[in-house]
Amino acid sequence: MHKIVDVGVNLLHANDHQAAHNRKHFDAAGVRCFNLMSSPGAGKTALLEAVLGTLAQRYRLAIIEGDMTTQLDADRLRRFGVPVIPITTGRACHLDAAMVHGGVAILERDVAPLGTFDLLLVENVGNLVCPAEFAVGEHAKIALLSVTEGEDKPLKYPIMFREADCLVVTKTDLLPYLPCDRQLLHHNLRQINPTAPIFWVSVQEQTGIAEWLGWMDAQLRAPLPTVTC
Amino acid sequence: MHKIVDVGVNLLHANDHQAAHNRKHFDAAGVRCFNLMSSPGAGKTALLEAVLGTLAQRYRLAIIEGDMTTQLDADRLRRFGVPVIPITTGRACHLDAAMVHGGVAILERDVAPLGTFDLLLVENVGNLVCPAEFAVGEHAKIALLSVTEGEDKPLKYPIMFREADCLVVTKTDLLPYLPCDRQLLHHNLRQINPTAPIFWVSVQEQTGIAEWLGWMDAQLRAPLPTVTC
Repeated sequence: MHKIVDVGVNLLHANDHQAAHNRKHFDAAGVRCFNLMSSPGAGKTALLEAVLGTLAQRYRLAIIEGDMTTQLDADRLRRFGVPVIPITTGRACHLDAAMVHGGVAILERDVAPLGTFDLLLVENVGNLVCPAEFAVGEHAKIALLSVTEGEDKPLKYPIMFREADCLVVTKTDLLPYLPCDRQLLHHNLRQINPTAPIFWVSVQEQTGIAEWLGWMDAQLRAPLPTVTC
Repeated sequence: MHKIVDVGVNLLHANDHQAAHNRKHFDAAGVRCFNLMSSPGAGKTALLEAVLGTLAQRYRLAIIEGDMTTQLDADRLRRFGVPVIPITTGRACHLDAAMVHGGVAILERDVAPLGTFDLLLVENVGNLVCPAEFAVGEHAKIALLSVTEGEDKPLKYPIMFREADCLVVTKTDLLPYLPCDRQLLHHNLRQINPTAPIFWVSVQEQTGIAEWLGWMDAQLRAPLPTVTC
């Protein structure tokens, strides 16, 4: 007799359990957690570089930096004097809740207790598919999409854009050089996600960044649930 | 007593077995199979659109088109009068050998026997991580990288670029507008893959395409192994 086991569903269930544990830990410590996700090269690290100086003046923050290999992104972000915990996933295509739990443990061991921080930014592995399905305990999922990727991507990779609480369209300075229709991209994002705020950002031209920082401020002002562990 | 099972290794082993079966099937039918992979929006479909007219004059070809959802890419390619078999993977982040096997079965049922074709192009799901590990029986893996993704991507996603038999750098027309160093990108590709040919292509400016077609011609001229099934 064979028992059929849906490995995918079981893995996701175990991850959701760990993510709920992480979330309770974040709430109890009074720290807000955002999970940044996108294709490789959509500009997650560049966006963080553009805001870290300002964020570090306003909040006590730390970063968990996911990459398959190398600490290139972690090195870029450390220049801002912010604690960065790199997680190299090896062959894995996304951060999962257990990896982030491990990263938080390293943060607490090497830097300071979690309750010391206001904000924990998680930069996920560049992948428009898998990270969308693996919650890490975050309060908000932030999905980036570069205009260079084309207007059809929200329709072709709907899970990522449906799950997002905040949408950031990047590299808008390249629109004049691309066969990319901004109206159509907006329309396609709204087909998949009717409500999440959409920010149009160019790090090169420094546009849209203040608006996105405003969204983060509003999130950080909202009260966290009271947790008794 | 619990038996520890490495699900990942077992899945890859099963996939390799199916891929070897596919490959034998391709060799016996005298059809060459190329697997195109890249991040979302690096320009796999655009590159195929740029060459399908020429390829269709030279070869009898068919396309297996992988997407999580929608037939948008399949519709774009069908305009060239070439048979396109769409495979929507649902939540799966890559094509595997079984999916391609299923696609070939549909091709044979609905269009013509495999032996009728010279060339089978597989356009994978846009993902720089997972497709690299799932062989589909292809004779060559073709990895695309857009200059908009940044010079560091070969180092950060090494499996894809190490496994590739052919490297295509796309959207070179955007280089003047990007903080992307072409020499450094070349250097990083060569660090990960010292031997695969590298083609620098702009579909917008129609540069590098003839050179890439020349590589495909050379592959198609080389004899396939003789297989007795």
